[in-house]
Amino acid sequence: MIRVAIIGATGYTASESLRILLRHPQAQATYLTALPEECGPIVKIFPEFRDRLDLEVEPLELAKLSDLADVVLCCLPHKASMGFVPKLLDAGLKVIDFSADYRLRDVAVYEQYYQVKHTDTKNLQRAVFALPELFREKIAGTDLISNPGCYPTCSSLGLAPLVREGLIDLQDIVVNTVSGISGAGRKPGQAFHFPEINENYFAYAVGTHRHMPEIEQILSDVAGKPVNVLFQPHVAPYTRGMLATIYANPTRSLSQAELDELYAETYGPEVFVRLPGCPPQVLPVAGTNFCDVWATTAKGKVVVLSALDNLVKGAAGQAIQNMNIIFGLEEAMGLL
Amino acid sequence: MIRVAIIGATGYTASESLRILLRHPQAQATYLTALPEECGPIVKIFPEFRDRLDLEVEPLELAKLSDLADVVLCCLPHKASMGFVPKLLDAGLKVIDFSADYRLRDVAVYEQYYQVKHTDTKNLQRAVFALPELFREKIAGTDLISNPGCYPTCSSLGLAPLVREGLIDLQDIVVNTVSGISGAGRKPGQAFHFPEINENYFAYAVGTHRHMPEIEQILSDVAGKPVNVLFQPHVAPYTRGMLATIYANPTRSLSQAELDELYAETYGPEVFVRLPGCPPQVLPVAGTNFCDVWATTAKGKVVVLSALDNLVKGAAGQAIQNMNIIFGLEEAMGLL
Amino acid sequence: MIRVAIIGATGYTASESLRILLRHPQAQATYLTALPEECGPIVKIFPEFRDRLDLEVEPLELAKLSDLADVVLCCLPHKASMGFVPKLLDAGLKVIDFSADYRLRDVAVYEQYYQVKHTDTKNLQRAVFALPELFREKIAGTDLISNPGCYPTCSSLGLAPLVREGLIDLQDIVVNTVSGISGAGRKPGQAFHFPEINENYFAYAVGTHRHMPEIEQILSDVAGKPVNVLFQPHVAPYTRGMLATIYANPTRSLSQAELDELYAETYGPEVFVRLPGCPPQVLPVAGTNFCDVWATTAKGKVVVLSALDNLVKGAAGQAIQNMNIIFGLEEAMGLL
Amino acid sequence: MIRVAIIGATGYTASESLRILLRHPQAQATYLTALPEECGPIVKIFPEFRDRLDLEVEPLELAKLSDLADVVLCCLPHKASMGFVPKLLDAGLKVIDFSADYRLRDVAVYEQYYQVKHTDTKNLQRAVFALPELFREKIAGTDLISNPGCYPTCSSLGLAPLVREGLIDLQDIVVNTVSGISGAGRKPGQAFHFPEINENYFAYAVGTHRHMPEIEQILSDVAGKPVNVLFQPHVAPYTRGMLATIYANPTRSLSQAELDELYAETYGPEVFVRLPGCPPQVLPVAGTNFCDVWATTAKGKVVVLSALDNLVKGAAGQAIQNMNIIFGLEEAMGLL
Repeated sequence: MIRVAIIGATGYTASESLRILLRHPQAQATYLTALPEECGPIVKIFPEFRDRLDLEVEPLELAKLSDLADVVLCCLPHKASMGFVPKLLDAGLKVIDFSADYRLRDVAVYEQYYQVKHTDTKNLQRAVFALPELFREKIAGTDLISNPGCYPTCSSLGLAPLVREGLIDLQDIVVNTVSGISGAGRKPGQAFHFPEINENYFAYAVGTHRHMPEIEQILSDVAGKPVNVLFQPHVAPYTRGMLATIYANPTRSLSQAELDELYAETYGPEVFVRLPGCPPQVLPVAGTNFCDVWATTAKGKVVVLSALDNLVKGAAGQAIQNMNIIFGLEEAMGLL
Repeated sequence: MIRVAIIGATGYTASESLRILLRHPQAQATYLTALPEECGPIVKIFPEFRDRLDLEVEPLELAKLSDLADVVLCCLPHKASMGFVPKLLDAGLKVIDFSADYRLRDVAVYEQYYQVKHTDTKNLQRAVFALPELFREKIAGTDLISNPGCYPTCSSLGLAPLVREGLIDLQDIVVNTVSGISGAGRKPGQAFHFPEINENYFAYAVGTHRHMPEIEQILSDVAGKPVNVLFQPHVAPYTRGMLATIYANPTRSLSQAELDELYAETYGPEVFVRLPGCPPQVLPVAGTNFCDVWATTAKGKVVVLSALDNLVKGAAGQAIQNMNIIFGLEEAMGLL
Repeated sequence: MIRVAIIGATGYTASESLRILLRHPQAQATYLTALPEECGPIVKIFPEFRDRLDLEVEPLELAKLSDLADVVLCCLPHKASMGFVPKLLDAGLKVIDFSADYRLRDVAVYEQYYQVKHTDTKNLQRAVFALPELFREKIAGTDLISNPGCYPTCSSLGLAPLVREGLIDLQDIVVNTVSGISGAGRKPGQAFHFPEINENYFAYAVGTHRHMPEIEQILSDVAGKPVNVLFQPHVAPYTRGMLATIYANPTRSLSQAELDELYAETYGPEVFVRLPGCPPQVLPVAGTNFCDVWATTAKGKVVVLSALDNLVKGAAGQAIQNMNIIFGLEEAMGLL
Repeated sequence: MIRVAIIGATGYTASESLRILLRHPQAQATYLTALPEECGPIVKIFPEFRDRLDLEVEPLELAKLSDLADVVLCCLPHKASMGFVPKLLDAGLKVIDFSADYRLRDVAVYEQYYQVKHTDTKNLQRAVFALPELFREKIAGTDLISNPGCYPTCSSLGLAPLVREGLIDLQDIVVNTVSGISGAGRKPGQAFHFPEINENYFAYAVGTHRHMPEIEQILSDVAGKPVNVLFQPHVAPYTRGMLATIYANPTRSLSQAELDELYAETYGPEVFVRLPGCPPQVLPVAGTNFCDVWATTAKGKVVVLSALDNLVKGAAGQAIQNMNIIFGLEEAMGLL
């Protein structure tokens, strides 16, 4: 049984990881930590786990952690994460990091978008950006997984087949997305106080969202050359799930049959990418590790629609998928 | 033109008052105040007022207030309110207080439920508890209006006809209510962070809600003798409006025709109490100053259903209704 | 592997049953039927099952059914159900019926509340009303399970300990409930068209709801004498889950410790009844087979709060729990 | 007092028109019609009008209509509308048509997108497409107003300044929009049954939405030459309001100051277009006739955000605005 610790256990990605681990036949949560003022029985923080999970959230003790766990899901925010990860690695633990700290290989881009100095560039170089459907071959041997962001996972799975084949203009891609409110985290604030976001809808971070360079990095890796993306996120009044609506210019005429075949070839063997053959919706992927994708053409453009659950395939589910890979388990274990 | 100041202008009861005043032909907002850290242009706080309302929210200056306003809507929380009201009255202003500080005549009950010492018992004695449909005759001459709570307004309008006529057992009344989330105010917190309350529903303050003694005071005044109520509130995931479902034991057999006639007689002349003749719903009263009421019998009990918008008839609308009364205007002015 | 057929496979209780069966280690869906005009691939009807479930929904053929299935989940509405059940039993199948047709032992009460003649009184007499936590000993040997209603399950689990011990007045019980909209079924109609129920809340079926006699039958069985309940349902704008807020008069003074002990004794051994020790909420039971219960006293009354997911413990989950019992499996199999 | 009839009085655009007319000082609803099976007291259909509006919805009688009304709001769907409009005009009434039947000047485009033969091409030629902020000078004298669609109003107000000045490539414009569910009308169906759309989000009508040629017609009129738009709508789980997120390629470098100035010049005199100077949101325009617009640049593209209430500025409010114009009233009368 793989013993899993969660650092930063009071947020939504942590509760979602716990929900998945409860059904995982070969892994279980053994140690949960948070800031001292947030500690207490897990059922006080997440009452859905009553009678299911008898753990305390405790302040982190490194010795205890390395005694109790084989792998750490590091659910801290950026900046905090890179303060802990080196210690975890030094203690011989495998680390799956949910933050942005080990995602962007270019330190300058990281520092520009996150407005903080990177303090662990050493480990950054060896971290594996682990989006299994695109970079599976790099994941197996590693002990430092950088778990991709929700928007980048959603967008890149939608775009990768076209980018890899050079079927779209790599310099003119618009990724328009919407996310449910769980994507904003568990900490309350004015913008996501119920009466302010209920019956509301808005765009944010125009031209400045931190997932934009991450999407570009992924697609550039896939293409083997630089890709330029305008990424524009929105939020809508529901809890879970996201949809990317992607607009790109084809480099040549593309038929629906050709698109269907391209996506079927790319994702046919993939358990977690589904091809509904029509516009995917958010509700059928909610609570699952699936990403539903459909590509078509309209008015001379390629339009790709891609939907996933931001907390599952966009975070905790993908993390467990990566955990399965690095421990040599069946990749879908506990995730169906 | 009546000049209206709002103290505590950054909450939902304030924004609702402003929304109503924008359509009021004989009153207008002239001065808005808040704590220094919350101040700024009103359109930054409530963007719906862009191009409609060109006011700054400023720290309170008493001299400026008495220069600029004839009446003050005091939208502060309890305890804060009784710190300001004496000064406002001394400055010669009329005051409509939204807080609980001047609602409960019995200081001991106030101090028990609100866990704070009452510091303005002098004005408490002369404040008028202004639920117009029940106590209209006391309102006209006053300069200190205590604006009733949302739950008490909703419940009491539903029960008053039965209580006044002695048609129910006054010692065994259950008032089960639900409110939208705007009733919890504009300040964000964990419980009403969107992902925590969306798709959720719960009861709270079992046996301890502060509106329970207020309901009992109103109904005791109506009955001329003590009334005992078990009041149980709940919250549901929508923004505006509340429903009271009231269970009482009739003192004699009551026909539907008799109930209909009783309510028609009581509320026939009232502009703001409507009798739909079937179970009222929350949506048709949302955004209005109406309270929709229906009484019936079932399994030997009287069941009364009463619906209103907690921010309008339960707060800002009733305040403007009271303002109209004390200034001798048509009671419904600006409210239809 | 137990082979499960679902009749009436296009509704929410069917999709929820399928969702549970996908994780059940010893049962699987093998045959799905519906009216001819509703038939087609299950993924067209419920797109969440894409790549998970490769079944067609077909018009019912009895021979095929008895070839392919060991047990039938009969997800038909009342009246339709009693037309099929005798044939299913005759074909040697075990039947778990979700409708009301086999719930009320008193045919006259059934015919009064459902306004239809009962056409299968023979099987009605031997059907087992299967609420495991209250009537487990009767379930094991049967081949005709009448699966309880959602409101009755929620209310009765909350009240049973008090009723069994005679701690409340059995003639004066008010059960006030709220349900999410999935409880109204999958067929669209005006009342639950999104813009009509979103931001709305209302009471319905005042004094006439069909689950009222079912609740009374359960509690009378528990008490060993007649129980009288006023049951009042409401709907709120969310999808899943219900809360019962129950008001009763204690027959003697009850302390919180005594109540806590009573419920702990009653439900301690039960996997699916949880005792949070505070007001339960709907969200922590959503998607689970748990019923969370808390009892307290307030203003001279006993107040019981009981929450469950109407589609799981209130329908499909309880059905699978019952299936596990009649097939001698661990009762919680596939349900955690 | 202008007397207003509404044909097709049982839908949301009709109820919204009635809500506005109740506050209009110089117009009132006098005659409401619908299909015979939908007729009855307006308060049975829209309970929010209880005690406000004492009208029956009746089957249309042309003689009665021309006796009782000066102007008709024709709230019928496309195809139905062009069957009635000629008769209304012949009866000497002014007509404001909410349908698509008189919007597209090119009959072939209409017949392609609406899949029905146009039967009133005579009146089509003289109908005025009445988006006041863009085509005000054509509206005053007419008796046949074609009221624009919600998406076209929202998108065109956002794009018009750029298109008029030739600041963007007119052949490569993406208009990505989201609408609340009221935009789908009041008739219930599977897709907008509460449990199916709550917690859901999706794109629809990829490359085929009927508002696409309408947007292109408006912008081509503004530009004086053909404009090509890829329009992609989505729905989100809230009731009212829409947001357009528009992506275009600037023909030359544009500074924020230049964009701000352009929009301020264009819309400065307009009552109903507001410039918040930051991304507009849906909630602040809900229930109002405002369209909030902001333009900026990002990653080499122009991004325009435009928000309005689909039922008000996108339908009923704009209709009343047009009514005010053709009757020589102040344009904003009853709309603030």
